[in-house]
Amino acid sequence: MKMKGIIVKKPGGPEQLELTELPIPVLSDGEILIKVEAAAVNRTDIVTREGKAGYANNEILGVEVAGTVVKSSRTSRLQVGDRVMGLVNGGGYAQYAVMPANRALKIPGNFSFAEGAAIPEVFLTAYQTLYWIGKLKQHETVLIHAGASGVGTAAIQLAKQISEAKVIVTAGSKEKLEFCKQLGADKVINYKEQSFDEEILQVTDGKGVDVILDFIGASYWKKNLASINKGGRWVLIGVLGGGVVDKVNLMELMAKYVQLSGTLLTPRDDEYKTNLTKEFAEIAMPYLERGSIKPIIDTAFSIEEVAKAHQYMEDNRNIGKIILQVGDRTY
Amino acid sequence: MKMKGIIVKKPGGPEQLELTELPIPVLSDGEILIKVEAAAVNRTDIVTREGKAGYANNEILGVEVAGTVVKSSRTSRLQVGDRVMGLVNGGGYAQYAVMPANRALKIPGNFSFAEGAAIPEVFLTAYQTLYWIGKLKQHETVLIHAGASGVGTAAIQLAKQISEAKVIVTAGSKEKLEFCKQLGADKVINYKEQSFDEEILQVTDGKGVDVILDFIGASYWKKNLASINKGGRWVLIGVLGGGVVDKVNLMELMAKYVQLSGTLLTPRDDEYKTNLTKEFAEIAMPYLERGSIKPIIDTAFSIEEVAKAHQYMEDNRNIGKIILQVGDRTY
Repeated sequence: MKMKGIIVKKPGGPEQLELTELPIPVLSDGEILIKVEAAAVNRTDIVTREGKAGYANNEILGVEVAGTVVKSSRTSRLQVGDRVMGLVNGGGYAQYAVMPANRALKIPGNFSFAEGAAIPEVFLTAYQTLYWIGKLKQHETVLIHAGASGVGTAAIQLAKQISEAKVIVTAGSKEKLEFCKQLGADKVINYKEQSFDEEILQVTDGKGVDVILDFIGASYWKKNLASINKGGRWVLIGVLGGGVVDKVNLMELMAKYVQLSGTLLTPRDDEYKTNLTKEFAEIAMPYLERGSIKPIIDTAFSIEEVAKAHQYMEDNRNIGKIILQVGDRTY
Repeated sequence: MKMKGIIVKKPGGPEQLELTELPIPVLSDGEILIKVEAAAVNRTDIVTREGKAGYANNEILGVEVAGTVVKSSRTSRLQVGDRVMGLVNGGGYAQYAVMPANRALKIPGNFSFAEGAAIPEVFLTAYQTLYWIGKLKQHETVLIHAGASGVGTAAIQLAKQISEAKVIVTAGSKEKLEFCKQLGADKVINYKEQSFDEEILQVTDGKGVDVILDFIGASYWKKNLASINKGGRWVLIGVLGGGVVDKVNLMELMAKYVQLSGTLLTPRDDEYKTNLTKEFAEIAMPYLERGSIKPIIDTAFSIEEVAKAHQYMEDNRNIGKIILQVGDRTY
């Protein structure tokens, strides 16, 4: 049995992505086989495509899917025909994918497959960084950089709905900032026009924020340090602004009792992802089911347009998720 | 009423320390007045003496004392005559000191005042960094730099006795390393003769340690990063090896999911110190009371010899604590 899937010819740009014929993956114990209807594009896919990740051991790209269960192992509570979404260990950009059964989330009845594919990676990352690493507490203040990104749009909603946090975001256009406001952001800052640290100190009475979700890294280092409160948790999940910081003064981290945590989701082990998915299902899914938190989709590309989809993300043009339509059922 | 106490004439070296006559401090509500028998010297005192701390608002040096209660506020459960030890907000190098009553620990009957003065700062710091910040779990592996220092000798014992941790220490002499071994260290490394990261990777099967207590900072940066396990907690509590790291690669912190936390104890607020003292009293004091954990004293100087005591610490000659005898009762 053959299927279509996207592989990387050799490390490089979007032009290296190729739609090709591959064998349908074989089910291991505890796994389900999913007929994929929609996958989604993530920064981690781009890093893998460029050959910089070092942790992908699946030649097919893609870390999340939504689709229908077509085979289930005996131990699973899932049935053939169930509509599911979740994280896969690579292999998402394809017509069929395997997933550990205990990592699958049922797609709420009110969501399409495209909306289902827009949930796992960004919402689980946002949940992990805000709560497991950032220890965000009720009514604290959180700074979310790249507020209009996939993780950003998820984090704004989670922080606002679950924790009634004061949410401050940065983004690079009026349109993006307006959208973040609609999602619940209390204060939006255009990093191209304003010094975000000065703005933040002003709206926090000079205290700074309790949690920072930092996708930017080096270029924001000093301003993040100036923006963080005593005892603040600074979570580093991307280096879009460079990975190497010159001259780090450790005394500044000590004087403010800063907790700086680096994290990634994709290379974590199965147990971690399962536990994260389980807690997310309990705490956050109810908000999605009743519609107070929404998956945010920017554009859906067909799987044949995958190179275009990658380029679109690299140009930072998206507000929310970029979806790949794989099957013919998008409802 | 006058008393003797040590002040700093102007920011500078040990020669700036002066024994002078001062008024006995006035008791505020919720405080106790202690007739000090012994105080102890800490790195934070040296930083304050040099004028680099910025958080001392007591002209008398010293952050910990042991002595006898001579006045107690009505709300306190402590009685005049009780033998107590604990953290003070400055003012420790003096014949009398005030302390928030809920921060006083009773000195176990088996300990002298000198031993009492050797406990609060280093044991509370070691407890805070190992458990509150470093989240050390049973049977994990911990790397303790400056193992023969005050905090080092406290941390070795706490990690070993409370958590049955695998304890790895670094120090700069054979004598210091031998002493750390006697306290329970499983592996000792002379940083002057061996590359500690290589040794650590060897004894941890290439995994690295779960927690690092880092008093050193910049000069150990790369080796600490090489020595830490995935998901490791790296606690920064001193910069004896320099405060500024030239190039920090954030991707390395992300790839290992490192949590790097800066912390200090002295500038924390009263509530923090009270809660820390309370938990320490419950969890760790029983080990001290039954003698399985011991305060480690290197040398006791008289208060008149305070400049010598500071110089002794700055020369890194001590194994364990340096005590200042203030009263005439050292039993």
